[in-house]
Amino acid sequence: MKRIFYNGIVRTVDERRPVAEAVAVQDGIIMAVGSDDDVAAWAAGGQSRATAGSADAASDVEWIDLEGKLMVPGFHDSHLHLLSYGLSLEKVNLGQAKSIDDIVTEGRAFLKARLVEFDGPQGVPAGWWLQGRGWNNDYWEDSRFPNRYDLDRITTEYPVTYTRACGHIIVVNTKALEIMGVTRETPQIAGGRIDLDEDGEPLGIFREAARDLVYNAIPRLSVEDIKRLLVKGAIPMVRCGITAIQSDDLEAVPEADYQRVIDAMTQLDSEGKLPLRVFEQCLLPPVARFREFIAKGYRTDKRGSGVEGNGRFRIGPLKLLADGSLGGRTAFLSGPYADDPQTCGIPVFTQEELDELVKEAHDHDMIMAIHCIGDGTMRMAFESIEKAQKDNPKLDMRHGLVHCQITDEGLLKKFRDLNVVAHVQPIFIDYDMHIVRDRVGEAMEKTSYNWKTMLDLGVHVAGGSDSPVESFHVLNNLYCAVTRRGLDGQPEEGWLPDQKMSLEEALYIFTMGGAYASYDERVNGSITVGKQADFAVIDRNIFDLDPEEIKKADVVMTVIDGEIAYRK
Amino acid sequence: MKRIFYNGIVRTVDERRPVAEAVAVQDGIIMAVGSDDDVAAWAAGGQSRATAGSADAASDVEWIDLEGKLMVPGFHDSHLHLLSYGLSLEKVNLGQAKSIDDIVTEGRAFLKARLVEFDGPQGVPAGWWLQGRGWNNDYWEDSRFPNRYDLDRITTEYPVTYTRACGHIIVVNTKALEIMGVTRETPQIAGGRIDLDEDGEPLGIFREAARDLVYNAIPRLSVEDIKRLLVKGAIPMVRCGITAIQSDDLEAVPEADYQRVIDAMTQLDSEGKLPLRVFEQCLLPPVARFREFIAKGYRTDKRGSGVEGNGRFRIGPLKLLADGSLGGRTAFLSGPYADDPQTCGIPVFTQEELDELVKEAHDHDMIMAIHCIGDGTMRMAFESIEKAQKDNPKLDMRHGLVHCQITDEGLLKKFRDLNVVAHVQPIFIDYDMHIVRDRVGEAMEKTSYNWKTMLDLGVHVAGGSDSPVESFHVLNNLYCAVTRRGLDGQPEEGWLPDQKMSLEEALYIFTMGGAYASYDERVNGSITVGKQADFAVIDRNIFDLDPEEIKKADVVMTVIDGEIAYRK
Repeated sequence: MKRIFYNGIVRTVDERRPVAEAVAVQDGIIMAVGSDDDVAAWAAGGQSRATAGSADAASDVEWIDLEGKLMVPGFHDSHLHLLSYGLSLEKVNLGQAKSIDDIVTEGRAFLKARLVEFDGPQGVPAGWWLQGRGWNNDYWEDSRFPNRYDLDRITTEYPVTYTRACGHIIVVNTKALEIMGVTRETPQIAGGRIDLDEDGEPLGIFREAARDLVYNAIPRLSVEDIKRLLVKGAIPMVRCGITAIQSDDLEAVPEADYQRVIDAMTQLDSEGKLPLRVFEQCLLPPVARFREFIAKGYRTDKRGSGVEGNGRFRIGPLKLLADGSLGGRTAFLSGPYADDPQTCGIPVFTQEELDELVKEAHDHDMIMAIHCIGDGTMRMAFESIEKAQKDNPKLDMRHGLVHCQITDEGLLKKFRDLNVVAHVQPIFIDYDMHIVRDRVGEAMEKTSYNWKTMLDLGVHVAGGSDSPVESFHVLNNLYCAVTRRGLDGQPEEGWLPDQKMSLEEALYIFTMGGAYASYDERVNGSITVGKQADFAVIDRNIFDLDPEEIKKADVVMTVIDGEIAYRK
Repeated sequence: MKRIFYNGIVRTVDERRPVAEAVAVQDGIIMAVGSDDDVAAWAAGGQSRATAGSADAASDVEWIDLEGKLMVPGFHDSHLHLLSYGLSLEKVNLGQAKSIDDIVTEGRAFLKARLVEFDGPQGVPAGWWLQGRGWNNDYWEDSRFPNRYDLDRITTEYPVTYTRACGHIIVVNTKALEIMGVTRETPQIAGGRIDLDEDGEPLGIFREAARDLVYNAIPRLSVEDIKRLLVKGAIPMVRCGITAIQSDDLEAVPEADYQRVIDAMTQLDSEGKLPLRVFEQCLLPPVARFREFIAKGYRTDKRGSGVEGNGRFRIGPLKLLADGSLGGRTAFLSGPYADDPQTCGIPVFTQEELDELVKEAHDHDMIMAIHCIGDGTMRMAFESIEKAQKDNPKLDMRHGLVHCQITDEGLLKKFRDLNVVAHVQPIFIDYDMHIVRDRVGEAMEKTSYNWKTMLDLGVHVAGGSDSPVESFHVLNNLYCAVTRRGLDGQPEEGWLPDQKMSLEEALYIFTMGGAYASYDERVNGSITVGKQADFAVIDRNIFDLDPEEIKKADVVMTVIDGEIAYRK
């Protein structure tokens, strides 16, 4: 099947030909890029644009008029959680809640609606849990954490778990605690915390590694369930122009385990039902599970030039969660929090533990994607990566750090010096700019979230959303990267305005930047002859408009492997 | 083993960090690039530069003082003939001959010296041929071709073959004709010519495909012989800073066949004795041989990220000779030669034949390297490549054309539009600038040898020498690319001066340009952390000097896989 997209403004993200009007595609591969006339010439053989807009059976060429709209390479989100997002569609969304009362009210309304769907209490599936996520007490007037007693106001009959927006803290109700078997006698978990009240009773609040107690109690999903949720989660992403993601799913949700997730992905892929490309960031705690995974022969798939097959699902890096979140003050800083000198956050690993894990992965040809928010964690991660490479030098290992928020000049250079990929989420600005100075002080703020400096230094930067932590709407993400404003347009001058990227740079990190990180730069990430035909079409040319238009713009078409996956 | 090269001017050919002072290497891989202090910090652990210049057994770090000299990535010559060059070292070099008398005199002197080496006529190995190459009648006052009778003046006892500088025309003596069994009755060969005198007697001149008659008569080399010649040929290249070549050897010399050459290369590689990296441009006529090669499972090795092994020898493209040379007027032009309106040159294939060969290679995941000098051939080659890709779209096929000399604007754009690599030889300027206008006229001259235009258009350009046709001294090649002068420095303003490259561009095509063409850009071609440690060190900083200094400069050190392969 041949398709010609013409009459567009094509931003290729290929410096060898940055702008074009038209693109020809055949069997999923880009065959020609150029002016409308160039590409029409490519299609020569009697076919003319007079038949534009309709498939011409005789010549097997479909002409698609872009109507002057903007075409860019399909977006690449370099860090999100597809399965979590799919699951979130069947959970209470607490992102808008403004108080503990709000999260209770929303929970009650959700339960009521679910009971109707289930056809009354008799129809509730065995082992069903009411789950919610996205609350953020930093937005509330009374910013205390909710606890079991608050959630008991929703229900005492069904277990309830509410995950904080950051994902690193979970609150459950009393029914859930019963099922989990957690009491005052339950020992604390290394690398995490079970919050207790003054009497030593569990408050239902579980941080970091202690979340495992919740996860272990929630019933498992079948492979078929996981397939349904992956597709359910991916479709809205495709509608936002996303054609490739790096997704953290394997042991990321309590309801699934890594083998079922891999089986679900692999089955969808071989059935041709995976809506987008997935480079799996393999979260595999505890270490025994990682070793089992390696023993099964799984390795980072460093695709060559596509000759190994055109599958959409590939094993990516080993994902490690090395600290928590800035909001929850669990990100590990090199010094105390400015607004809570009692703590530096929680490093999940000791240096020795991290060294060992990174070395083991590196030695088995797995690259890393290490969640690092605090500068303390980042320093540890760089040390582990440097040691692993010194111990066993390997070619072209694209180890990466995810989030990379609190940095100083030395750390920024370290990305370049070790050739470590920075996975960043410009959309985080929307929330984080309100807390960074409080958390780390003004001096450290200046050198943090310094993604423009990274680009100027020559660091490989890849853009992502961390969905469902933040929305995966790439245009919002581009907006934040370019303006350094919140989604409300404030502050007008932008937060740390010297860190504004050009729109070209922002688009690069959400296309080629991600493709580089997933060893895909040879076959994806730009509109170049011989690459996969993945495109997003945007309703206006945001390159020529006021940056405020970026967040107002809309994706009107998404093309994957040359097929129109979405059209508004 | 760790080595630190410091106190240099390092031009990395990596736009993310173009200039540095020092490089650290371990186990053949680049570990750190930066200032002297940065790299010293990398080596930290008590080791200091105070011990510079000597291997420090205690710390296993060798410090190498670059003494302010220029370090660049190891040079990549994207088209030459290693085995032919090795063989040429045991042949008469006729490159300096100024007349037919000269080639006779040199032949006689060579024979005399050989007979001494062989310890008299009794010691001459059975089947020995006196071979010479490099004569070019265009340089002579009397520019007629030499013939059998001229060569009979050297010897009538031993067979003599003299190959023209272009490689496309061979002259033999009468003894050789006897061994070959060529007489007036021998039929002409399609795609070639046996020159006859007025009486129909063979003159001993064999053009293009007719050369096979000579090749078939020359005795074969053993695998051990070939190994010896490959090493003999590669060592002088390494001394010129070359660390990677794309070499055309398989059926390129009459003395060897493809399987023996592959066996010789593979054995040298596995024995650790191959002096440099070889991406083999597989010349495999006739087509039955190519099919046999494919049936054996050989394919272009599109290296991923080095995980498939670090072998130096890899199968590259299928090489096709689609026309001849400009000097010999066998390059196929779209119109008649300006200085010989009787001929357009000789296309080796019909369009249908070329289409079929290219399709067959493409379908079997072999990329192409098609020798095209004339614009007529180039048009045919582009058509075949475009058809093959339309018939069977494939990702990231880096088909290439070799020489790419006579072009018009449309052809220059075609390289970009089809993403076809241009393998060019700037050193050709030295000779060709004297004949191009004569051959193709002034209008066509203007758009020919337009390599700077190619770069500006975004074409992937790779630089080479075509050794032994021209010298593989890369610095001379860079000089010609930058100045567009002959090696005598004339004309001062340069030939087609708008086509001068910057030295950065010229260096790019002889490093990254070649690496791209051989699917090596992820692991080679620039001085970047995580790549193979291949370097050339030059005695002066040619970036800061008058371009005339480029050809006077000297390579003083060559590093391959982190090992010092040559040091002056």
